[in-house]
Amino acid sequence: MTIHVHSYATHSATSELVPFVFERRDPRPSDVAIDILYCGICHSDIHSARNEWGWTQYPFVPGHEIIGRVCAVGNEVNQYKVGDLVGVGCLVDSCGHCDSCNDGLEQYCNNGFTGTYGGEDKIGGTPHRLTFGGYSEKITVDEHFVLRIPDNLDPAAAAPLLCAGITTYSPLKHWKVGAGQKVGIIGLGGLGHMGVKFAHAMGAYVVMITTSPEKGADAQKLGANEVLLSKDAQMMAAAHNSFDFLLNTIPVGHDVDPYMALLKRDGTMVIVGAVESLTQVSGIPLIFRRRSLAGSLIGGLPETQEMLDFCGQHNITCDIEMIAMKDVNHAYDRTVKSDVKYRFVIDMASLKS
Amino acid sequence: MTIHVHSYATHSATSELVPFVFERRDPRPSDVAIDILYCGICHSDIHSARNEWGWTQYPFVPGHEIIGRVCAVGNEVNQYKVGDLVGVGCLVDSCGHCDSCNDGLEQYCNNGFTGTYGGEDKIGGTPHRLTFGGYSEKITVDEHFVLRIPDNLDPAAAAPLLCAGITTYSPLKHWKVGAGQKVGIIGLGGLGHMGVKFAHAMGAYVVMITTSPEKGADAQKLGANEVLLSKDAQMMAAAHNSFDFLLNTIPVGHDVDPYMALLKRDGTMVIVGAVESLTQVSGIPLIFRRRSLAGSLIGGLPETQEMLDFCGQHNITCDIEMIAMKDVNHAYDRTVKSDVKYRFVIDMASLKS
Repeated sequence: MTIHVHSYATHSATSELVPFVFERRDPRPSDVAIDILYCGICHSDIHSARNEWGWTQYPFVPGHEIIGRVCAVGNEVNQYKVGDLVGVGCLVDSCGHCDSCNDGLEQYCNNGFTGTYGGEDKIGGTPHRLTFGGYSEKITVDEHFVLRIPDNLDPAAAAPLLCAGITTYSPLKHWKVGAGQKVGIIGLGGLGHMGVKFAHAMGAYVVMITTSPEKGADAQKLGANEVLLSKDAQMMAAAHNSFDFLLNTIPVGHDVDPYMALLKRDGTMVIVGAVESLTQVSGIPLIFRRRSLAGSLIGGLPETQEMLDFCGQHNITCDIEMIAMKDVNHAYDRTVKSDVKYRFVIDMASLKS
Repeated sequence: MTIHVHSYATHSATSELVPFVFERRDPRPSDVAIDILYCGICHSDIHSARNEWGWTQYPFVPGHEIIGRVCAVGNEVNQYKVGDLVGVGCLVDSCGHCDSCNDGLEQYCNNGFTGTYGGEDKIGGTPHRLTFGGYSEKITVDEHFVLRIPDNLDPAAAAPLLCAGITTYSPLKHWKVGAGQKVGIIGLGGLGHMGVKFAHAMGAYVVMITTSPEKGADAQKLGANEVLLSKDAQMMAAAHNSFDFLLNTIPVGHDVDPYMALLKRDGTMVIVGAVESLTQVSGIPLIFRRRSLAGSLIGGLPETQEMLDFCGQHNITCDIEMIAMKDVNHAYDRTVKSDVKYRFVIDMASLKS
């Protein structure tokens, strides 16, 4: 038995997203079936749909910022019941027995996690070999990979928490950002705007580091205490050795030396956006202040739930622009131009119309 | 009053080291005057003597791996007395009141430490403006920057501990290397051979990572448990995700991605040699295992004393080749060709002959 699902898919790197029907597996005993209400548009969706990372196979259904309601549960499911408001993020499966999985860090699974879209589906139960994402009516997910959404959050605005949210929350928590610290968020997009909100809620003194005075002003509305314009050499020099932590959301390769110089001794800059080659990394800024350059990938299931609960307590959601499914291609073009504050979310009810 | 001191100095970037006489300050109340017995030759001496880093002023007297005996003390000195065997490393002064100095991390002094050679001498008391190093008969140093050498160590073989030793000990301690960990030492020279000895003494499983099978065999004699040949793609691939910590002593800019891939999740690679631009650093190896790339600079005074005491307890010294002062220029050429196991040490008694 399978579930027929309407969705939007791409069929080549250069074609637009178009309506597509495929099959989801019927819930196994440990599975939850979810009616999808909203799905965020992440920049990774676009990179993948257009095969910019070289691994995409078609047809391809993007979407890993999923909010929905439980519509069926397997008989071993004990955390969720029909009607619950739930989320699904970037991963839907992992080996479950390596040390990363044992540590609740399924995103670093030594045997490779299964991405919510484009991943090799090791569970099976459908005619297709790869996973299909959240630009679709329904999804079937093992209970372990389902998150509970706090009641007080706007469900549409909660969707991007599942990727943009956890991607920024996890490094801020892992490197123990908090009160008494000066923290820089580099870049104001989907990730950066969540970084500002989280670092502010964690009690840090938050500095928005951006090329754009306009984005700086916007960041102050989101909770930034101060703006540092990265093209202003004087401002940058005056800020040397002053930051405890930097969260770098720049989505492309770039020269990291000017940012490293901003860190105090023993400070860390964490890259969450740039998967490409960094164009300039010198030994001196690392050596002379014992600074670290690190990376961080989304978050594990326990920490993603912790992040959602933190959002519930602090009333944090994303700033979004809601669109209908049919407008997704236009939204992609606008996302590439950074013409969105700060995340598009697809109203999945529009898929039926 | 000053002390006239014989030494060897360079007078330009392209000239050889030649005999030179200059003046040291007479001990202030907090100073220790030292008759220098031995001084190691560090690669930094050569870079500086030849102005390869662009900051050298002439005349220039190198040397920051100094072993000697106390020959006079100021009346406020309470840690040392005439006849004590002592050492002086890379720094002879710092501001003393910034948070790095307060933390005993004088090498990261926010106001800039004074290097043992070529540093701006803020204490004064001599006709020259910059500090002169240890290729000389005597040195006058504030007691705070003097180290005690354990009695059981060969004093000549202890000299390079003051730079090569602390440069490798400090990151191994800071990142808590110890039993149960797999630690890689990249490169076998003055730094690398001490890294192998320390990591072994700290109880780690030590892997020498080198391009050369011969160096690998040498490293095993020094305490390495295993050799990983970095040019062997199969060996490298088989070692992916297996190291807890990497100490990278490569002295020039290089591609770090192949080494980063060797680290487990949350592992750190620390650069201690390459002050230049690293030629390839990608986001993916950092992001997908939450790895860190860091740097580390020598060590503070308390940690340098701790390192020397550790060497006393574990009977650790450097493998050296002793030379006479007049042979220093030839030793420089051999050092540049890595033709030394593993550090030249100048017998300063030869300066008189």
